[in-house]
Amino acid sequence: MNSSEFRRRGKEMTDFVADYLDGIEGRQVYPDVQPGYLRSLVPSTAPEEPDTFEDIINDVERIIMPGAASPACTELETVMMDWLGKMLKLPEAFLAGEAGEGGGVIQGSASEATLMALLAARTKVTRRLQAASPGLTQGAIMDKLVAYSSDQAHSSVERAGLIGGVKLKAIPSDGKFAMRGSALQEAMERDKAEGLIPFFVVATLGTTSCCSFDSLLEVGPICNKEDMWLHIDAAYAGSSFICPEFRHLLNGVEFADSFNFNPHKWMLVNFDCSAMWVKKRTDLIGAFKLDPVYLKHSHQDSGLITDYRHWQLPLGRRFRSLKMWFVFRMYGVKGLQAYIRKHVQLAHEFEHLLHQDPRFEICAEVTLGLVCFRLKGSNKLNEALLERINGTQKIHLVPCHLRDKFVLRFAICSRTVESAHVRLAWEHISQLASDLLGAEKE
Amino acid sequence: MNSSEFRRRGKEMTDFVADYLDGIEGRQVYPDVQPGYLRSLVPSTAPEEPDTFEDIINDVERIIMPGAASPACTELETVMMDWLGKMLKLPEAFLAGEAGEGGGVIQGSASEATLMALLAARTKVTRRLQAASPGLTQGAIMDKLVAYSSDQAHSSVERAGLIGGVKLKAIPSDGKFAMRGSALQEAMERDKAEGLIPFFVVATLGTTSCCSFDSLLEVGPICNKEDMWLHIDAAYAGSSFICPEFRHLLNGVEFADSFNFNPHKWMLVNFDCSAMWVKKRTDLIGAFKLDPVYLKHSHQDSGLITDYRHWQLPLGRRFRSLKMWFVFRMYGVKGLQAYIRKHVQLAHEFEHLLHQDPRFEICAEVTLGLVCFRLKGSNKLNEALLERINGTQKIHLVPCHLRDKFVLRFAICSRTVESAHVRLAWEHISQLASDLLGAEKE
Repeated sequence: MNSSEFRRRGKEMTDFVADYLDGIEGRQVYPDVQPGYLRSLVPSTAPEEPDTFEDIINDVERIIMPGAASPACTELETVMMDWLGKMLKLPEAFLAGEAGEGGGVIQGSASEATLMALLAARTKVTRRLQAASPGLTQGAIMDKLVAYSSDQAHSSVERAGLIGGVKLKAIPSDGKFAMRGSALQEAMERDKAEGLIPFFVVATLGTTSCCSFDSLLEVGPICNKEDMWLHIDAAYAGSSFICPEFRHLLNGVEFADSFNFNPHKWMLVNFDCSAMWVKKRTDLIGAFKLDPVYLKHSHQDSGLITDYRHWQLPLGRRFRSLKMWFVFRMYGVKGLQAYIRKHVQLAHEFEHLLHQDPRFEICAEVTLGLVCFRLKGSNKLNEALLERINGTQKIHLVPCHLRDKFVLRFAICSRTVESAHVRLAWEHISQLASDLLGAEKE
Repeated sequence: MNSSEFRRRGKEMTDFVADYLDGIEGRQVYPDVQPGYLRSLVPSTAPEEPDTFEDIINDVERIIMPGAASPACTELETVMMDWLGKMLKLPEAFLAGEAGEGGGVIQGSASEATLMALLAARTKVTRRLQAASPGLTQGAIMDKLVAYSSDQAHSSVERAGLIGGVKLKAIPSDGKFAMRGSALQEAMERDKAEGLIPFFVVATLGTTSCCSFDSLLEVGPICNKEDMWLHIDAAYAGSSFICPEFRHLLNGVEFADSFNFNPHKWMLVNFDCSAMWVKKRTDLIGAFKLDPVYLKHSHQDSGLITDYRHWQLPLGRRFRSLKMWFVFRMYGVKGLQAYIRKHVQLAHEFEHLLHQDPRFEICAEVTLGLVCFRLKGSNKLNEALLERINGTQKIHLVPCHLRDKFVLRFAICSRTVESAHVRLAWEHISQLASDLLGAEKE
């Protein structure tokens, strides 16, 4: 949508809201629809080609308004998560469908999704152990529980361990910064020998530092065999899996119990919108389900409806699936794929520029939109370069450590980024590097 | 703001956004401002009288845009939470000010605030006990930890206990559905005698079922004496404390470690916006602080800036303080007070109508905008009445149980509610009651 259409549509939306409020007394207090009304009104998959804004707004009046905030908010979310799951070619088991055991939910952030998965896994293993040994206290069990993630996993994984009150151990990643099956197996065997109880593994697809990928095809079978919950955190990289050429990065998802990525990161959906799927929703729901009278409703036990409050930490919810519905329809799957591909191509363009300059080295494989690089030389030199880059305030880079190396990260992430911006950034970085190296020599 | 001004301003805002995006290449990538820049640009308290929309928009350009999303997002939040704290006349210790140890943060919901408080308290007591007895495991401690809330507390409190892995015991409330000091003391002494470790109390101001108030002035000193963290959940009632005539309901807040209420419930701020204050922010921050390189920044350890990511469960944050800023300024404190008072007055109007009809009884003291009532008679009769009321879809009531009684709840909560709506609702309820009682006799 270009600027002039945005202006026109934004103003129409303003009138839409004002008209709604002006006429609110004429509207029904409570919707007439029956549970499950919405699924039959929308297609079962996202459109390949863009829909018009007109069509979407007409559908708001036709499909959403009769279902008001409830149940439309819940039902659109379930269907949108199915749409998105199908775009990623997630195994059928993760979809809600009309009678599935899995399904998706929108969380606020990947941190919350990881925490929810860890808590569900903790409840599940605790119940299993207490069923076998009724005398075991929860504390005694928690002292023995151990979770694993790669040493490259996001800090929120470690934090989930702290919040959940369980040990979280970092598995040393390999030369490509990936967690491998052998390293996980080794740590697990050692812990089991010491009497600990491995119960939860977070595999990262697209780490924050360098966008590396844990080996799902190795880690997954170990988790299944050892009855450990496998959660996949693909916060950033997940969006790319809608492109057939990147879908192989998700191979092994069939071994997982839960999977999460953030459409708010790289799929043009505004913050916040973190998409999480589980294979068995009873595992998630069972962890903390409480039903006081003031939250009861007549469809409670019918199995017809989804109570998302049991799927998440907060009780209240926003209507975030509307954002997904609008974005998926306005871009179409093809438009979203083109957006991802453009970013990846721009990252490779930057990678290519770096390759031609022998002063620099590339520090990790460029798979998606992130390029990790540095000047050949000391960490101090690179810290000085970063200081110059960020100090001039024309572009902004966020660094990381890869093993003992201080590394600069060039991330393609703006909606409007073009090849010209990448070249400009490169010239800028290159010039500042020359200045720095010149000053070093003096 | 009336409908025609809304239409005009909404359209101006559309252009504001489009202009911003059209001109984005001319803007700075990184803001020039120094930490703490914002506080000096805004008044230290909310305005008593409304500001004009014009003034507010001009301030967006003058105050927010130079600070971009960061640090403006954080700094406006700190200042708005101070504004709101002052509106409630919270003790100075809860305010951030320029050198305070306390401060406020916007959470997504009261559930999250309760959970954060419980986790912070759990970490604090665990560290204290492990410092005294280094051999104690976390699990052994958690098996002994016990938290308390009234038997009228919201289900999210029990849920926080489940998530935190600690016992949560319900203290029997008194005849007015309030938790009293004596009942808390009794439960605590019994638990201590059994070797348990009381560490956390949630006091509710304005319970969900009947808007009852725990006795802070009794519970508070016990918590302080016994070194138990006191968290106050005033999710709904908190907004009323900006009116001097209701502020006494908050007396005893000085004993609390943390306090929370939801401006999104009754203060005209759109969902979600849950306001939480702590007396010692180090208690909250200390619980899960992790600082990976990619989240480090140059002001990290200066004490000058606030890293709200340590105050909450998710890592990412939205710019929710903008909503508070707009609402506080567009209504002024007086406008917000008038809004609260109108709702309370309408609740009393409904109460008065009930009093005149001997078929009904009022089941709890009407203090704010909630009226709990029922037909004198069986629960079955009242369940049938509720079914008729909600079945006709003209109004919608949510019931509760008070002890063994099934009770109907009439809640004043719409922004546009008037006396005429209350009278209409009453006539409707009264008629349905007549129909029901007539049918019963036949």
